Amino acid sequence: MASLDIFAHDLAGWARALAAGDVRASDLTETCLERIARHDGTLHVFTTLTADAARVAASDADRRRTKGETLGPLDGIPVALKDNIDLAGTPASAGMASRAHIVSTDDAVVTARLRAAGAVILGKVNMHEAALGATNENPLYGRTYNPHRASHTPGGSSGGSGAAVAAGFCLAALGTDTLGSVRVPAAYCGVAGIKGTRGLISPRGVVPLSWTFDHVGPLARSTRDLGLLLDVLAGFDPACAESTAAPSAEPYDPGAPASLAGIRLGRLDGLAEAVVDLEVVVGFNRAAEIIAGLGAEIVPVTFDGYDFGRLRRAGLIISEVEGAVVHAADLAERPEQLSDELQAMLGYGAALPAVRLVRAQRDIAAARERIMATFADLDAIVMPTTPQTAFDFSDPVPVNQADLTAIANLTDRPAVSVPMGFASNGLPMGLQVLGRAFGEAAILRIARAYELAADHDMRPLHLS
Amino acid sequence: MASLDIFAHDLAGWARALAAGDVRASDLTETCLERIARHDGTLHVFTTLTADAARVAASDADRRRTKGETLGPLDGIPVALKDNIDLAGTPASAGMASRAHIVSTDDAVVTARLRAAGAVILGKVNMHEAALGATNENPLYGRTYNPHRASHTPGGSSGGSGAAVAAGFCLAALGTDTLGSVRVPAAYCGVAGIKGTRGLISPRGVVPLSWTFDHVGPLARSTRDLGLLLDVLAGFDPACAESTAAPSAEPYDPGAPASLAGIRLGRLDGLAEAVVDLEVVVGFNRAAEIIAGLGAEIVPVTFDGYDFGRLRRAGLIISEVEGAVVHAADLAERPEQLSDELQAMLGYGAALPAVRLVRAQRDIAAARERIMATFADLDAIVMPTTPQTAFDFSDPVPVNQADLTAIANLTDRPAVSVPMGFASNGLPMGLQVLGRAFGEAAILRIARAYELAADHDMRPLHLS
Repeated sequence: MASLDIFAHDLAGWARALAAGDVRASDLTETCLERIARHDGTLHVFTTLTADAARVAASDADRRRTKGETLGPLDGIPVALKDNIDLAGTPASAGMASRAHIVSTDDAVVTARLRAAGAVILGKVNMHEAALGATNENPLYGRTYNPHRASHTPGGSSGGSGAAVAAGFCLAALGTDTLGSVRVPAAYCGVAGIKGTRGLISPRGVVPLSWTFDHVGPLARSTRDLGLLLDVLAGFDPACAESTAAPSAEPYDPGAPASLAGIRLGRLDGLAEAVVDLEVVVGFNRAAEIIAGLGAEIVPVTFDGYDFGRLRRAGLIISEVEGAVVHAADLAERPEQLSDELQAMLGYGAALPAVRLVRAQRDIAAARERIMATFADLDAIVMPTTPQTAFDFSDPVPVNQADLTAIANLTDRPAVSVPMGFASNGLPMGLQVLGRAFGEAAILRIARAYELAADHDMRPLHLS
Repeated sequence: MASLDIFAHDLAGWARALAAGDVRASDLTETCLERIARHDGTLHVFTTLTADAARVAASDADRRRTKGETLGPLDGIPVALKDNIDLAGTPASAGMASRAHIVSTDDAVVTARLRAAGAVILGKVNMHEAALGATNENPLYGRTYNPHRASHTPGGSSGGSGAAVAAGFCLAALGTDTLGSVRVPAAYCGVAGIKGTRGLISPRGVVPLSWTFDHVGPLARSTRDLGLLLDVLAGFDPACAESTAAPSAEPYDPGAPASLAGIRLGRLDGLAEAVVDLEVVVGFNRAAEIIAGLGAEIVPVTFDGYDFGRLRRAGLIISEVEGAVVHAADLAERPEQLSDELQAMLGYGAALPAVRLVRAQRDIAAARERIMATFADLDAIVMPTTPQTAFDFSDPVPVNQADLTAIANLTDRPAVSVPMGFASNGLPMGLQVLGRAFGEAAILRIARAYELAADHDMRPLHLS
């Protein structure tokens, strides 16, 4: 048979169908490969497609299932990896021409964890060059287009990951998130994405940009899918200085919460300061009403004195300086292989005086304390994920794209983006839930309750 | 009467004598003022002596006690403050000519806490210029001399605080500690000193050097004195980004532990890498034997791959950069008021590229993880406080003075220095106990058990 309606279920639904014997992993994988063959010539998502290995992995999953030796809900589920995450035997370019020849000898920790859980890895997907930017206009692999509108950006830097999930090329993808690079494409592409608390998921085997703010995070079609993925991805890695935390003892899968009674939620006000588009504000107010209708107590909060732009820039400065250290050899020895834009950003980082950097770090530390104080009696804070919807590649890049996502990176806290329906321009919007440290289970439960109640159909209708 | 033998008791002992009515606060204060009058012409400890205010405060304490309204163990206890800690109405020079005219309008948080506990503040004491150095050779106020040998440094940067306690000019003094500036002078002067976990004591109202590593910490003649002082100094300060922690619910006063049974202690090996003087190693081995005799289980530990000098320099680089931000106006507008040495250090920080700084920060983060792993099953780690004893002002400054103390600042952990007797050159040595985060009570208990068992008499015999 093979060709299935991939949008009939989310990952969790397909996992259930696999468990019930209603479908084979091989059919899921073939369906994804067919969709890729049909649409990727237009969307430009994959940089490396490992179709043969995927077919073998899918057969192995089916064989295990026949023998009653299945590895869990991800066994046989097709997934994709951002091109800065090591997959043994394939290049990990990080979207950089200077790295396109570097073939990974080992899997990244997250790749190995997915593989050990039986996930079928389809290959590597496009990203913004060096993960330092959010359009996904890549000088090496070209533009990746938004499945909801093929003239528009999917967001970035994990744009390929967002587009792959939205286009039904896979059921989940890994991205990385330094100031919002998982959640911005999740919002722009109409899928769900999460960045966990700093230290929860090992970044070992991922090409770094900023070791201070980098996180690996999954994207999928629903928040319960994210829970299943976190169950596999989260874990302490003693070999990695950035990995500091054991996962929650409880599963991250939020189930199907029908009520948010007893939950105290901040609703971020003062969005005008972050220059949020009017229709995103309208969509956000509607989402907040749905959440209030679920029984959550909603409290307006402002991050008093928090300067969204200044702090996002502070985060960017640190990323540029740490990126200049990471890519020092490329910058010094083969700058012609970097785009002018990347050369400029890394060059800025390389030349920045340390006194400027420590001022940025001090600003961030002060903002962190301010937000921590705001959180004192709240379970989470909700806000839009991005101030606007995806934009046309020919339009100027909005400078404030990551103003609302950066907050979670600057404060080391978890944040999930869940689809918030479509704006009147027909493009997806995202709702972001920012949690307490190690509050992943709590924010997934809140996001899941909203997702079930709102029941948005985010399928990109023009993609057959 | 007045003149008492100030060395007859530690702070806790004098507090008991006050409580019993055996002595008056005024007599204690007069005794200290007499000692200052007798010896400070030689030692050069005080930069501002507030004798009149101290006499009033001592009378007030005596009056409270007569009425049964005493404020606790510090009520009536004479103390001194390092000259970078605000005391309303007196200059807070931070040892800098450029700041000598800046009179504090308010008390620092720690000053206010001492005052509210009834402590009698005698004045401000000398320090290394800008707290950036450890000889206490101050260009504005001159050298402070070690009470144990008047040709030698008291250490620094809180050299005046160490000398004031050792000379019996007061029963306790506050210092500040960025890479060891409380514990180095404690060790060199034969007194006890503690740096708490980062965030435990508010630094608000203290002239900063490095907001990343600065801590306020007390010096006194015994570790139980330090416990009484922490009981007053520790506390969350919502107005201060660096203050993050409430104090322990238990008192810090360690009592008189006769046994260390059940305690698992690391003994730092590999001291040769930190170039520890042979006789300090011998003294340390003797101390470790005493601790083992108290029933503690002693486990040799090495901070595998920890490069003592490289990491102390990494901390110094951060201090120089942050110091260049703090003192930017002085450096730019009145550099002639800074010593050549300070100009060079701050100038280095001002000119340093940010990429160098983030490399230092990354090295420190990696070392922190390494040490955290070492700590997994230990209550604390013991090591010498300094690799050598105090040195002659005419000798070159040993570069590795702070190699062993910096560890606690770089890892945000508490560390106490307790006198370890005299080396054969007649100068004091210090034993350092490095604890787990917020393990102040535990390290004070260990240090106190050692102190009681070792029973070193650290009185500077040549000072009458």
